[in-house]
Amino acid sequence: MTLERIFQTPIVARLGIKYPIFQAGMGFVAHAELAAAVSNAGGLGCIGSGSMSARELREQIHRCRDLTDRPFAVDILFAEVKADPKNATVVRYASNVQKLIDITFEEKIGVIVSGLGNPAGIIPAAHRDGVVVMSLCGNVKQARRLEASGVDVIIAQGHEAGGHTGRIGTMTLVPQIVDAVRVPVLAAGGLADGRGLVAAIALGAEGIWMGSRFVASVEAFAHANYKNKIVEIDEEGTTITRCHSGKPCRLIRNKFTDSWIGREAEIKPFPIQSVEYGFPLAEKARYDGEIEEGGMACGQSAGLIDSIKPAGQIVREVMAQAREAFESCFVARGDAAPSRAA
Amino acid sequence: MTLERIFQTPIVARLGIKYPIFQAGMGFVAHAELAAAVSNAGGLGCIGSGSMSARELREQIHRCRDLTDRPFAVDILFAEVKADPKNATVVRYASNVQKLIDITFEEKIGVIVSGLGNPAGIIPAAHRDGVVVMSLCGNVKQARRLEASGVDVIIAQGHEAGGHTGRIGTMTLVPQIVDAVRVPVLAAGGLADGRGLVAAIALGAEGIWMGSRFVASVEAFAHANYKNKIVEIDEEGTTITRCHSGKPCRLIRNKFTDSWIGREAEIKPFPIQSVEYGFPLAEKARYDGEIEEGGMACGQSAGLIDSIKPAGQIVREVMAQAREAFESCFVARGDAAPSRAA
Repeated sequence: MTLERIFQTPIVARLGIKYPIFQAGMGFVAHAELAAAVSNAGGLGCIGSGSMSARELREQIHRCRDLTDRPFAVDILFAEVKADPKNATVVRYASNVQKLIDITFEEKIGVIVSGLGNPAGIIPAAHRDGVVVMSLCGNVKQARRLEASGVDVIIAQGHEAGGHTGRIGTMTLVPQIVDAVRVPVLAAGGLADGRGLVAAIALGAEGIWMGSRFVASVEAFAHANYKNKIVEIDEEGTTITRCHSGKPCRLIRNKFTDSWIGREAEIKPFPIQSVEYGFPLAEKARYDGEIEEGGMACGQSAGLIDSIKPAGQIVREVMAQAREAFESCFVARGDAAPSRAA
Repeated sequence: MTLERIFQTPIVARLGIKYPIFQAGMGFVAHAELAAAVSNAGGLGCIGSGSMSARELREQIHRCRDLTDRPFAVDILFAEVKADPKNATVVRYASNVQKLIDITFEEKIGVIVSGLGNPAGIIPAAHRDGVVVMSLCGNVKQARRLEASGVDVIIAQGHEAGGHTGRIGTMTLVPQIVDAVRVPVLAAGGLADGRGLVAAIALGAEGIWMGSRFVASVEAFAHANYKNKIVEIDEEGTTITRCHSGKPCRLIRNKFTDSWIGREAEIKPFPIQSVEYGFPLAEKARYDGEIEEGGMACGQSAGLIDSIKPAGQIVREVMAQAREAFESCFVARGDAAPSRAA
């Protein structure tokens, strides 16, 4: 058995990357610098278009191409928006999403990620162009529906994940989705190191999708106060709330999230809550470093994150730790301990 | 590397068992027949004393000794009860717990599990008698406190677990607790098959603690309707509620749990809510098969459980699946795939 080969899962070969480490396309945070650093280190970087205008996305794609010649992805929020021609916010939001999609195709990005919702509408065009479509989901029913729509890779995202997330824990969600679909599955939620990568592969996943670990990176487009807060908090420092966008979302618990406790009935549906609260308060945290009044997505993996590092170093350290975990948990024990088996 | 040896973790040798599979000491369900079947198959069976009188526990221990000569454990709810000499329910509850502890010591049970709370008070006596004390916990702070109290084994139980549980997902809780304590750690929550065992070991755990999988066993002391309901529901079929005992507890979602939505303010503190609602409604489910009005603990692993089986067969199948997962995810890929490593 060659240790390196264990991590060369089929999706790694298919995408032409080196390691099964996928950087989450986090809105406001995952700009060209982060995506390029991850891709240059052998993972798959991803530009999060959630907060961008069409022009900004195009600039970020060009900037990423300047920084790397490896593949990278673009994440788009495909969340279904109830058509409401009378609501200017909704109309503007939906029109911007369409522009982001168009640009991603025009720029011939090889991997499109759907961070929310079902990207069914773009799949025929994506497959015509040889584009791989990956989609996050939080339960088995959604995974089956996504596969039926033609999605190429399912990202099984557990309850412990930061940002928009579901109710099912990663440890039990991943094997259940692996059993339910035939397409490759990536594991997401609570993962921030190499032990998690080995565990995810044992559960049948072909790689890991990490968010919070990459927010606390040098290249992440976020204020130092936000990055430091991730380092500072422990696994109990986050909460699930709909106050960010109208949909359940895991954020660092602070004055903003606390201020909505007991006022849940006032929360508006997606995307109106996002436009009125989530987006501006996310900017407040990311640009101004306002960690009490701002909105900061983060997962329960915060307890595993103890310093801010260059993203490429994170990729290399996760791989080194995965090899080490494999050696110490499996190889050393297999060689050294006396056999008690029948 | 000898595959069998991978599963011979230090705790397996220390307890004199064969496999790193630990059956949860579920109140009302884990009687002598279940514990003995698991221990006979090479795991560690456990009698759940939560619902028992002192006389019943002694009978169950004797019955278990008739059925197996292998080690088994007793689970006791050490949850702290606020001394309230005026409340007869509280006084009776606390006095019964003390009797259960006394009997467990008198009967020279080798492993005592604390299913809730901190068993600090019994640790000097336990260690004098060579008894191993294991304790469930849901976050890093509790794990550190338990280790400081002298607990020998920490069971890191994730949010996805059935019964009383915490907020942190198993996938991220286990490595965080492994990093925080020096005593052995078992993984609990969402685990129901051999893939989970391999994943747990990769995260640094020395074994897995399974509940729901063993409720859906032939030997579990539960009505067929309850067992069948676990087989029937998927990963979204449970909910966290305080209506069972006053503490957060994961149950199958039904009329009972729904009836408390919006009435959370009426829930009484532990153990009063248990005595008035949780215990009688748990009996209603387990004895009468009342699956809508009764209370049924169950984890999100329900989606991995597709039939009722003998408990010994469950142990053997988990081990077989663990070997198969290891071979297919690590050995086969390591041998077959072309190396792409630098």
